[in-house]
Amino acid sequence: MKLYDGGRAPNPRRVRVFLAEKGIEVPLVPVDMNELGHKAPEIEQLNPLMRLPVLVLDDGSVLTESVAICRYFEETHPEPPLFGRDALGKARVEMWQRRMELNLMMPVAQAFRHIHPAMREWEVPQIAEWGEANKPKALEFLALFDADLGDRPFVAGEEFSIADITGMIAIDFMKPARLEVPESCANVRRWYAAMKARPSAEA
Amino acid sequence: MKLYDGGRAPNPRRVRVFLAEKGIEVPLVPVDMNELGHKAPEIEQLNPLMRLPVLVLDDGSVLTESVAICRYFEETHPEPPLFGRDALGKARVEMWQRRMELNLMMPVAQAFRHIHPAMREWEVPQIAEWGEANKPKALEFLALFDADLGDRPFVAGEEFSIADITGMIAIDFMKPARLEVPESCANVRRWYAAMKARPSAEA
Repeated sequence: MKLYDGGRAPNPRRVRVFLAEKGIEVPLVPVDMNELGHKAPEIEQLNPLMRLPVLVLDDGSVLTESVAICRYFEETHPEPPLFGRDALGKARVEMWQRRMELNLMMPVAQAFRHIHPAMREWEVPQIAEWGEANKPKALEFLALFDADLGDRPFVAGEEFSIADITGMIAIDFMKPARLEVPESCANVRRWYAAMKARPSAEA
Repeated sequence: MKLYDGGRAPNPRRVRVFLAEKGIEVPLVPVDMNELGHKAPEIEQLNPLMRLPVLVLDDGSVLTESVAICRYFEETHPEPPLFGRDALGKARVEMWQRRMELNLMMPVAQAFRHIHPAMREWEVPQIAEWGEANKPKALEFLALFDADLGDRPFVAGEEFSIADITGMIAIDFMKPARLEVPESCANVRRWYAAMKARPSAEA
């Protein structure tokens, strides 16, 4: 088994943090995305979408999409469960995972890709107006998330889950997108600090 | 249990098709999204994001996000499995589900929301250039999907799954976005026709 990894980019990091929380070690094949290594023929052959990470199993099976790779390890290494326990718990993790992706990670990524000068050749056409339009979307969601979170320890309830990983990495990604968690979002700031203090945050 | 439903919009439809494939009947509460019923206080109280569908369980628990609602029913009604069977199968469904969402449904939705005159008050600001930029993204993905699909019966393998539902509904959504599956994508056209012939497509 080997995992083609993409360094500091958000999606490769999601898988590495997930593996760290599970205590699973997988041999990594580093790919330098700054050098457009994810567009090399070796990667394109594995994933025609030319995105990372990519997991190759011992039988040659290929899995792409960070959450699909995490799902594979959830099934093969069920403890600790990071996608929830019972029916309602699993559905709640999925709900928050999607809220974090669609309402936070996605607008932050759009703001970054459509405004940051380093993304000019990655996002064509780069449309600054669309990038700017995404900033309030992310901030509006943070206000709703803060109100819902209250003093709960984790995004989806009483246990750490993949939704915490996605949320932490989305907030990390706000920095290059030149966004900040507002002071008024005290619950989000408390939760984020706790996530950053976990050893897995360094993965 | 009751499901606040949003009619013909893609996400509410995903859940209804899923329920039809499972053979599950859930009492529906129709909400008229054309009349902005999803922004009424009753819905906002259940889902501060003001999106549909919303599932309310008998104990008052609330689930939002179409895929999270489907996940709940997968757990409570496992047969037939629509999220895959073993570890690799489940990961493959998740991979294709995400590819269908992120590379097809999402660009089609962006094209629709940022170009269609009926969306002027829904998507503010409406940025036609961004809508147009999404059309080639959807078409490029369809070409890759066609090459991968070959003569396989279903998106993620030999069995029908939620990825087929997402794919079918994304392609249905191409019509109001004024996009067409190219003639050259013969495998996609064959697969789509088979999906539309299933009774669940009417749900």
